[in-house]
Amino acid sequence: VEADCIGSAAHVTMLSRMPAKARLFSAEEKDRVIAELVAIMRQARAGSFDITLADQDVHLAVERTLTGKLGDLGKKIHTARSRNDQVAVDLRLFAKQQLLELGDETIELVNALLGFAAGSAGVPMVGRTHQQPAMPSSVGLWASAYAESLLEDADGVMQAYRQNDQCPLGSAAGYGVPLPIDRQFVSDLLGFSRPCHTVLHAGNARGKVESAILGALVQIMISLSRLAQDLILFTLPEFGYFRLPADLCTGSSIMPQKKNPDVLELVRAKASRVLAAYLQVVEVIKSAPSGYNRDVQETKKPFLDGLETTRACLRIMKRMVTGLEVNEEALRKGFTPEVFATDRALELVGQGIPFRDAYHQVKSNLPELSGMDPAEAVAKKTHLGAPAGLALEILEKRSGQLAAWAKNERSGFYGALTKLLGVSYPLTG
Amino acid sequence: VEADCIGSAAHVTMLSRMPAKARLFSAEEKDRVIAELVAIMRQARAGSFDITLADQDVHLAVERTLTGKLGDLGKKIHTARSRNDQVAVDLRLFAKQQLLELGDETIELVNALLGFAAGSAGVPMVGRTHQQPAMPSSVGLWASAYAESLLEDADGVMQAYRQNDQCPLGSAAGYGVPLPIDRQFVSDLLGFSRPCHTVLHAGNARGKVESAILGALVQIMISLSRLAQDLILFTLPEFGYFRLPADLCTGSSIMPQKKNPDVLELVRAKASRVLAAYLQVVEVIKSAPSGYNRDVQETKKPFLDGLETTRACLRIMKRMVTGLEVNEEALRKGFTPEVFATDRALELVGQGIPFRDAYHQVKSNLPELSGMDPAEAVAKKTHLGAPAGLALEILEKRSGQLAAWAKNERSGFYGALTKLLGVSYPLTG
Amino acid sequence: VEADCIGSAAHVTMLSRMPAKARLFSAEEKDRVIAELVAIMRQARAGSFDITLADQDVHLAVERTLTGKLGDLGKKIHTARSRNDQVAVDLRLFAKQQLLELGDETIELVNALLGFAAGSAGVPMVGRTHQQPAMPSSVGLWASAYAESLLEDADGVMQAYRQNDQCPLGSAAGYGVPLPIDRQFVSDLLGFSRPCHTVLHAGNARGKVESAILGALVQIMISLSRLAQDLILFTLPEFGYFRLPADLCTGSSIMPQKKNPDVLELVRAKASRVLAAYLQVVEVIKSAPSGYNRDVQETKKPFLDGLETTRACLRIMKRMVTGLEVNEEALRKGFTPEVFATDRALELVGQGIPFRDAYHQVKSNLPELSGMDPAEAVAKKTHLGAPAGLALEILEKRSGQLAAWAKNERSGFYGALTKLLGVSYPLTG
Amino acid sequence: VEADCIGSAAHVTMLSRMPAKARLFSAEEKDRVIAELVAIMRQARAGSFDITLADQDVHLAVERTLTGKLGDLGKKIHTARSRNDQVAVDLRLFAKQQLLELGDETIELVNALLGFAAGSAGVPMVGRTHQQPAMPSSVGLWASAYAESLLEDADGVMQAYRQNDQCPLGSAAGYGVPLPIDRQFVSDLLGFSRPCHTVLHAGNARGKVESAILGALVQIMISLSRLAQDLILFTLPEFGYFRLPADLCTGSSIMPQKKNPDVLELVRAKASRVLAAYLQVVEVIKSAPSGYNRDVQETKKPFLDGLETTRACLRIMKRMVTGLEVNEEALRKGFTPEVFATDRALELVGQGIPFRDAYHQVKSNLPELSGMDPAEAVAKKTHLGAPAGLALEILEKRSGQLAAWAKNERSGFYGALTKLLGVSYPLTG
Repeated sequence: VEADCIGSAAHVTMLSRMPAKARLFSAEEKDRVIAELVAIMRQARAGSFDITLADQDVHLAVERTLTGKLGDLGKKIHTARSRNDQVAVDLRLFAKQQLLELGDETIELVNALLGFAAGSAGVPMVGRTHQQPAMPSSVGLWASAYAESLLEDADGVMQAYRQNDQCPLGSAAGYGVPLPIDRQFVSDLLGFSRPCHTVLHAGNARGKVESAILGALVQIMISLSRLAQDLILFTLPEFGYFRLPADLCTGSSIMPQKKNPDVLELVRAKASRVLAAYLQVVEVIKSAPSGYNRDVQETKKPFLDGLETTRACLRIMKRMVTGLEVNEEALRKGFTPEVFATDRALELVGQGIPFRDAYHQVKSNLPELSGMDPAEAVAKKTHLGAPAGLALEILEKRSGQLAAWAKNERSGFYGALTKLLGVSYPLTG
Repeated sequence: VEADCIGSAAHVTMLSRMPAKARLFSAEEKDRVIAELVAIMRQARAGSFDITLADQDVHLAVERTLTGKLGDLGKKIHTARSRNDQVAVDLRLFAKQQLLELGDETIELVNALLGFAAGSAGVPMVGRTHQQPAMPSSVGLWASAYAESLLEDADGVMQAYRQNDQCPLGSAAGYGVPLPIDRQFVSDLLGFSRPCHTVLHAGNARGKVESAILGALVQIMISLSRLAQDLILFTLPEFGYFRLPADLCTGSSIMPQKKNPDVLELVRAKASRVLAAYLQVVEVIKSAPSGYNRDVQETKKPFLDGLETTRACLRIMKRMVTGLEVNEEALRKGFTPEVFATDRALELVGQGIPFRDAYHQVKSNLPELSGMDPAEAVAKKTHLGAPAGLALEILEKRSGQLAAWAKNERSGFYGALTKLLGVSYPLTG
Repeated sequence: VEADCIGSAAHVTMLSRMPAKARLFSAEEKDRVIAELVAIMRQARAGSFDITLADQDVHLAVERTLTGKLGDLGKKIHTARSRNDQVAVDLRLFAKQQLLELGDETIELVNALLGFAAGSAGVPMVGRTHQQPAMPSSVGLWASAYAESLLEDADGVMQAYRQNDQCPLGSAAGYGVPLPIDRQFVSDLLGFSRPCHTVLHAGNARGKVESAILGALVQIMISLSRLAQDLILFTLPEFGYFRLPADLCTGSSIMPQKKNPDVLELVRAKASRVLAAYLQVVEVIKSAPSGYNRDVQETKKPFLDGLETTRACLRIMKRMVTGLEVNEEALRKGFTPEVFATDRALELVGQGIPFRDAYHQVKSNLPELSGMDPAEAVAKKTHLGAPAGLALEILEKRSGQLAAWAKNERSGFYGALTKLLGVSYPLTG
Repeated sequence: VEADCIGSAAHVTMLSRMPAKARLFSAEEKDRVIAELVAIMRQARAGSFDITLADQDVHLAVERTLTGKLGDLGKKIHTARSRNDQVAVDLRLFAKQQLLELGDETIELVNALLGFAAGSAGVPMVGRTHQQPAMPSSVGLWASAYAESLLEDADGVMQAYRQNDQCPLGSAAGYGVPLPIDRQFVSDLLGFSRPCHTVLHAGNARGKVESAILGALVQIMISLSRLAQDLILFTLPEFGYFRLPADLCTGSSIMPQKKNPDVLELVRAKASRVLAAYLQVVEVIKSAPSGYNRDVQETKKPFLDGLETTRACLRIMKRMVTGLEVNEEALRKGFTPEVFATDRALELVGQGIPFRDAYHQVKSNLPELSGMDPAEAVAKKTHLGAPAGLALEILEKRSGQLAAWAKNERSGFYGALTKLLGVSYPLTG
């Protein structure tokens, strides 16, 4: 509802300035329409705006309400605009807000991971290849690797945000109108970075921009799914590396020790859900010819579901990471002598021993490695990004830049809407 | 081969500077190794570098050749580096080159579409919704909408390029090494924008960055598939809007008029192929736990196939668009009176008639519209992005910016490699 | 609700026969429980059975209601059974009913297509390759090919039905119970063909049998999507081969001739939806280890959605085909001389002329073909399955066999349930 | 090559019987053609049949060779047949053979699993839910659940086999021919169960039957992927339940204890590959209109790759299971007291104690369970399909029925080909 009212406010503002034999809206009429639209937005916020079956959809419900209050003035707002136009701008406005929220949520999870990494930077943890114990590593490295993965994912979300940040209004049914509408002006009013250029692409992009956004969400869900899987494994009693927050586990009435990682299993499964949403949208638009086709209706549901699912997963994983407890003793148990072998050989190489000799020397003296201290082994890997060279401040800086970007975008976007509506946006209460 | 030699050249350069009790390589030794690597690259270019079955892979073939020429010096280059390291850096170097080529090819197709649009900007064409004739439009709008779609896709490719443009070297098996390697230095030598930060993420990103790249390619293929479908339809004898270049059609020995659009059908089908490649890679990495897993081997083939397929489709579609001929008469036939109805009603609205009256007036006088001139109808839609307001220079500017970006990137990248290898890169001959 | 009550009725019947130190249910107690379960089923049919938030799910709502009426007797029905057991049997009972309905709906569409084919068997229609006009064909061939496609799809549904038709009860949490339950008896009571054999597979099959069912639905949706696409094309004004039923099209208030094929576009798009549902389920279970995992919860929604979507599409397409009108004149227009060329050459070959000569003769006399009668050309292709050899009775027989199978299955299934519940099933009113 | 020659042999046999003014082939000519075809087949087996670039494909290579030997006789075999016809019949003949081999390979893996289950039927293993230890189970139950899963998958393969087992010949370009060809006769000659009925569906089924087959393969790969994942987990040093055959693991030169499960990781990843192949084929055909479209060419590669991949995985997993060793001691370590809790409570229920009391009693006396014997706990679950009621003979019987079916099919199929070719098929040597 809100996105629809905002779009209409911009459209009517533009119409009130459009040169025409008989001006469609006077400045005063425009203000009355916007005031009613704001009233509807307040109603919607309060949960008291009804969309009846007869309305068919939100667009007609808003139009009906306006017409009820303002008579013909309400009807006129639909001039030089099609329902496709409205759907398109509503989705883009909605997506802008959603992606900014999602950006914040991603950064919060990144920060939670970085905080966790900082708190356990020196805690030794066996590094694995093929899931088998392989080399000395640290909890800090494990956690910060996920933070970095999500930072890259957030860059992808930003790119999808920019692709979405173009105003489709003025496309009408995809072929423009024979009236002197000002598409750049509407775009500015709504706080978009620019108008979609050609009116046909504005229509063809329905579903396509959604697929690009969902593609960015898939990347996030891959990171979350892998994090969830690692946690499911590392909290098994056979590992016990971490303890999950009790309030995010389900128990068993008869097996008091049992803490089932339902939330993590659902996050893992929901990665498939978001991927399926992406595929559905891509498949629909890939087969659709240019120009409006009803097929795109089927892209709306997976798009909304993908956004909601990803955001929910980001929030719950932040709580998960924040409440995660480390069991240093259990972690230490994984350090069998062989885990030290490769590093030891490399050290000998660093001391000038040819590495073939170094390897041989280590291999034939494996038992000697049994006395090695995991913490010392970790402390020796000091180069950039290694367990003892995490330099978390570099990742923190990238996280901070993303947060600043999101704040700045939101400020510009909401500033434009505040000016357009004449009341502070987002509406309060 | 080339990417592998380049990665080794950077690694050995870094090792020659690494502080160690016994320096691993002297400056002179480093130069000898690099000279041999360049020799191998030349051999590979000439098609005379063999990878034997016993080598298993390109990495060992290069090592074997080096060792054959340089003895122990050849063996030492593998110090402080794992095969995963090599695969990862090879793929990223390869992807950088590929994406720059692909970027150019996208821009070339965009420019072909814009050129075609400029040449047929005023040619009327029925605009369709639900594939049914709906409103006056133009060939120029149709073609430039695809140019705009591909420009957006190119932005996505650029984002994937940036994600890829990080140096993974120094990750070793994913947990770093206990030696004072300089990862930033290696990254600079290779012309990467920066090193991947954490060594574990450098490993975990195998497959993930490929999936992000493939996701960007899927967007391109969606645009191409839709363009191909439009062309298949509009070149049917029932439409005849366009004639395909004869050398891109297959004929029938007995039906001389038959021009089968095989190439377009294949482009349409190959969109599914690239989507399947994307799905395969996402599927593999989504289920894989953190740390190296052999599973990622299965991401290489779909990655290479997706890149090659998309590039081939871009090139052939450029030839297709460049050779496309317009049949104005056939296009004009589609303009039945009803096609003018909506625009006509909107014009009346612009003249001050309430739109309900305007609609009624038009609807009851449809036959009057039969005399209307498509070209005039098109000429009346003058606002930004409408058939008579295409402002192609705006899209041309965006295309030019992309081209400049690609040129600049390539220059920085190849400049770094030229400096590293001591010979002009790309190698000639 | 219904499936859950039925499953409980079978379970309690089995428990009442189970040898135990203290029998859990007497025969009379069992009858009381079943009577209450039937009462709940009647309530649910009437829409007056409530599942409260506190209940969490249908299983606990039923248990609460039973306990409210019967006290401890209600609690005891959950003996030797887990909630997983219940979900599993509920889904399989539900799927059995759904697939039988869906089987009927498929057959009805097949019969509609065969009826349409019979009514237009001799109406000439241009056969196409590469979508281009190629050879003489008939409307009857076009329609009956879709009937045959759906008959094959129905065989696949039958196979999925059989895979589903195994009783999972007795699996408990996937590892059985230390009580002498009789799984074969419960399976018989519920009209299943047999019990799932191992209790672990009964659990592991959650999601897997759903994916097999969805795979069968994807095949149906492929057939429907292609039929929809053909109809979208052939009802364009440029073709006009068919007229869609007016009540299944949307119009335009101002363009009275416009009949938008929204329904067909949605069917085409919904094929992607069912495919996405399939992929989601496969992806979830492919990554899940054996034994119960919460992940499978995410398979339920796409499964139900896929079933509902496919059934709705089958029903609407039956209405579409039944109301389809043929425009013989428009169909005849497609017959340009070249369309007859290949057939003509083959005829000459049949008359003993070497085919190279025949081809040459035809090619150099194409204008002669302009006088050919499409109906005659069609009448000459008389072999099995050709336009004049459709032998629709063979497809009708296969359709009849499927209908008989479904009828027989339903009769056995509902007969078992009637016996179990002591009242005629399905419940009336 | 072989499939193509066989198809041609049947076609020419049919043509030699076709009533025509001038018979196309005499019986003697037919025999000469078939003799040459058999010669080509022998050459192909010996690896000495070349397909040159000029041939374009196998069909033309065969035709060229025939014409070289037999002159015009060779050219005539292409009468009343199109290249599509040939591709379609080749693929179906190839698929028949492949699916029979694959069926055997599936049964062999099933039998390996049943053998392994029989050998370790009584070995206790902790049953897991949410991957967490939950209840007493056995190695036999774990292994036989996978056997049962694969038996169901094999049923699906059989269904796909039946769908494929229809002869498409006589479709020509999809619209039949004006000659009295006998499609039923050709179908019988080739050992198909029946001809595809309508000639248009015979063409439209290209890709569709492949997608149905790939769908059946996806089910197998799901089972294999889960089995692989279980084995990866259970062979980690933290579990050590099983030891993989040494020759199916890769090691590390410096960590002698390391046994990497590369094969299992690849099987897991290849499940994604087969799923992607399925998706690609479905995608291509879902969007393709009816009649031949070049798009289907893109279905061939994923189809062949999916078959080959699945078969390779079945074979390697059979070797894996056959060589699997059980570590009973490691398995026993998983049995913490809580694992016995649920079973113990159920036992008390069986002794007449209300289950709420039973649960309470168990819960407050958990330490008492610490002395329990896993083997005894397992022995108490005796009902059908439970750890002590595996009744493997039931699954063995199903496996035997499948084997008998495959043997019978192969015998009928090869018998027909032997008769057609006049030499024993499969060719020897």
